Amino acid sequence: MNSYSSHLLEELVTEFGKLPGIGRRTAVRLALHLLKQDVSRADKLGNAIINLRNGVKYCKRCHNISDNDICFICCDHKRNSAIICVVEDIRDVMAIENTGQFRGIYHVLGGIISPMDGIGPGEINVDSLVLRVENEEVEEVILALPATTEGDTTGFYIFKRLSDKVRSVSVISRGVAIGDELEFADEITLGKSIINRIPYIKS
Amino acid sequence: MNSYSSHLLEELVTEFGKLPGIGRRTAVRLALHLLKQDVSRADKLGNAIINLRNGVKYCKRCHNISDNDICFICCDHKRNSAIICVVEDIRDVMAIENTGQFRGIYHVLGGIISPMDGIGPGEINVDSLVLRVENEEVEEVILALPATTEGDTTGFYIFKRLSDKVRSVSVISRGVAIGDELEFADEITLGKSIINRIPYIKS
Repeated sequence: MNSYSSHLLEELVTEFGKLPGIGRRTAVRLALHLLKQDVSRADKLGNAIINLRNGVKYCKRCHNISDNDICFICCDHKRNSAIICVVEDIRDVMAIENTGQFRGIYHVLGGIISPMDGIGPGEINVDSLVLRVENEEVEEVILALPATTEGDTTGFYIFKRLSDKVRSVSVISRGVAIGDELEFADEITLGKSIINRIPYIKS
Repeated sequence: MNSYSSHLLEELVTEFGKLPGIGRRTAVRLALHLLKQDVSRADKLGNAIINLRNGVKYCKRCHNISDNDICFICCDHKRNSAIICVVEDIRDVMAIENTGQFRGIYHVLGGIISPMDGIGPGEINVDSLVLRVENEEVEEVILALPATTEGDTTGFYIFKRLSDKVRSVSVISRGVAIGDELEFADEITLGKSIINRIPYIKS
């Protein structure tokens, strides 16, 4: 049964409903919300979607999302281009940038090795990483990949490909999250955090 | 601190984030999801938003959302135009249509009387309802308004305006929701449902 009295409304609800985590009820709420806004607000959102998908580029060096051929992180001369942080996707770049703790540059794999999903080493940007390590002055490659089997597999594969080409390959630390009670940490994480304990530096 | 390496991405995240119930994290997730879709999918969503907001019309008779001057419910000759169901907004029309229990037509107020929000009788579509009752052959007006003080106030105001112009003005029943345990119903609702009890019809 069709309860929409407007095809334009139905069309938008259908399209909103295809987005992840947005059910029909939320889609209707969003569409009706837009109806109450100024035309310019709706136009801005609509055009932002169209412009992003049509205008987006990926940095030719690090594969991060960018408005230009080379992203603003790679272009920034104040950043240390001798340290490359390898991440799964651009969301991870944003997350690490938000910490404000990293001043090197990135390499976005665009996925991780996952035989279950049919993603092998050839499907992700590893070759271009090897080329960068061979041709740029790289001192350290930091692997900031998911703490999963796939992440570990990908990390180990990259380590094998790079180990004789770069001085240092490191992995971000895993352990009990800041603010977490020990009793709520899972056993594997807690075990890892004991094995990888860090000595206090005597002052 | 700006963690976006693309202004197009930032623009879309900002616009998504203005929607109700969508925070920055969800906005980023939606934007990155669209990036992975075909260009045509993103274009469809973007255009659906723009088209709805620019192309939408409201039925000149009942104020329901419509693609034409008169909505498809008002145009439908199989519906009983002698029964008008008065609702707050178009979402309520969709909700009632979904029940499949109503074969009359509607009148959308576009709001309810709420002195706290500065909405008086003049701000909602009551005058046009009175005109309809005076000029169309209306037998019954059903008030399907929110079960709140504002809803009751609005209902009573409309009843006063219409009582000498139409044979019957009724209010949808309130009571314990189907499937609810009595112990979980609030006292006012439960009290109302006892007062408004309906006798079994002897067969």
